[in-house]
Amino acid sequence: MRKKRVVFQGESGAYSEIAALKVFPESELISKKMFQDVFEALNNATADSAVVPIENSIEGSVNEIYDLLLDTEKKVSGEVFLRINHCLIANYHHTDRLEKVYSHPQAIAQCRNYIRTKNLEPVPTYDTAGAVRQIKEGKILNGAAIASRRAADLYEMKILDQGIEDMKNNFTRFIILSDVETKPSGNDRTSLLFGLRNKPSSLFLVLQDFATHKINLTKIESRPTKEKPWEYNFYVDIEGHQEDKNIMEAIRSISNSTTFLKVLGSYKKGTF
Amino acid sequence: MRKKRVVFQGESGAYSEIAALKVFPESELISKKMFQDVFEALNNATADSAVVPIENSIEGSVNEIYDLLLDTEKKVSGEVFLRINHCLIANYHHTDRLEKVYSHPQAIAQCRNYIRTKNLEPVPTYDTAGAVRQIKEGKILNGAAIASRRAADLYEMKILDQGIEDMKNNFTRFIILSDVETKPSGNDRTSLLFGLRNKPSSLFLVLQDFATHKINLTKIESRPTKEKPWEYNFYVDIEGHQEDKNIMEAIRSISNSTTFLKVLGSYKKGTF
Repeated sequence: MRKKRVVFQGESGAYSEIAALKVFPESELISKKMFQDVFEALNNATADSAVVPIENSIEGSVNEIYDLLLDTEKKVSGEVFLRINHCLIANYHHTDRLEKVYSHPQAIAQCRNYIRTKNLEPVPTYDTAGAVRQIKEGKILNGAAIASRRAADLYEMKILDQGIEDMKNNFTRFIILSDVETKPSGNDRTSLLFGLRNKPSSLFLVLQDFATHKINLTKIESRPTKEKPWEYNFYVDIEGHQEDKNIMEAIRSISNSTTFLKVLGSYKKGTF
Repeated sequence: MRKKRVVFQGESGAYSEIAALKVFPESELISKKMFQDVFEALNNATADSAVVPIENSIEGSVNEIYDLLLDTEKKVSGEVFLRINHCLIANYHHTDRLEKVYSHPQAIAQCRNYIRTKNLEPVPTYDTAGAVRQIKEGKILNGAAIASRRAADLYEMKILDQGIEDMKNNFTRFIILSDVETKPSGNDRTSLLFGLRNKPSSLFLVLQDFATHKINLTKIESRPTKEKPWEYNFYVDIEGHQEDKNIMEAIRSISNSTTFLKVLGSYKKGTF
């Protein structure tokens, strides 16, 4: 049997790769530079599944993923939580010449206080693991990268410090995208996406439908429609499976207040 | 009379500076590198007002500003909308050697299709105007920057192309922060921030209070509390002034469902 092909964004050593290995330890991993490329690989069947970050417990939602979910036919078929543990990574162990720190702006933001204390100048990169490669290949001596321990190991670089994130409750929630439609497990979550009719009370009416059917909301996120300024689509996570009776009824009822409604998927809740 | 001191994030030529000049054409402008520095300048009275981006019609909310609003004592005392018109800016007019494009990741995202068509490699920077300076000072010949016309003019650089954003309905909404508490104008907006009691129906109950009092929601945004993973604070914009009777009543009623509630400010709606 051929290995499952799992696509992620970033280079080897990226947190997305670690999350993908947690779910699919025996898979063939495919690395893509941009989130758009990840979705393309899924859509043209170059990959069977994708593992992408949707939300971080400190920095919030990954907006681009929400936008890409609007257009894909793939299903959200699972979720996985990863504790983010940032390391300061360099070519050598001595740190007296350190002036700059290279990483993805979100990783830099998560280590803001640490960077201030050490009086380092942040340099943005597209990737945490890519920052490690850049430091190595450029033989940069006055800079370090912020990335995972795995990235340091892969590039055989030195770890100067670890756990440098300002907040210790730093988790990222990743979702798994594929063609799989999961069956109810008894401990599920369902992700929905909808547009609202242009009436002041539309959002209230939708939430009322959930409340009436005793459905617990775990997350609500709005994104610009991009068609008309200041009009939004809403992304909602609820507890339960789309085959549950109360959820089926709520979805039917909600369609009176929405312009469109898409069930992104039902899946077993992840643990963290 | 001394000039009003207005602080913004970015370098001269930044879109924030253009927005600040639109509201305060006669002011003394103060440039700061990070949003955090902007809020610090306000809080220690180095500046009288700040103009910061809160939301873009394509890319959505500026998360960091929402987080900084949690801790400031300043009031939201106004809003201003700016049409974003991106230019491709370089040292010379000829473009045959162009390989890379430098800009803030959000500006790069807004010109995604254009960049793909021209087959350019994106290089992230902290600033649109800063990218222009980088290209000029580094005498970079195989790269161009994405920034405003004002940035090109200030640095005396060449505009290779303009209006290169993928979507033409690209507006950014900026808010003005100061000590000013505005009086009702008859065409106002009010920004609120609250935490929810940990009950499934809390958000629904809050929206019900607005609906009962015939208050129109124009925006809802959630942000992680950072204290406990997957708990959120909510930012809501409503139509009307905090001195309006129905809004005073709704705010009183809402406090039954919230852990805290902060009125960020009431202000005259901006036009665009």
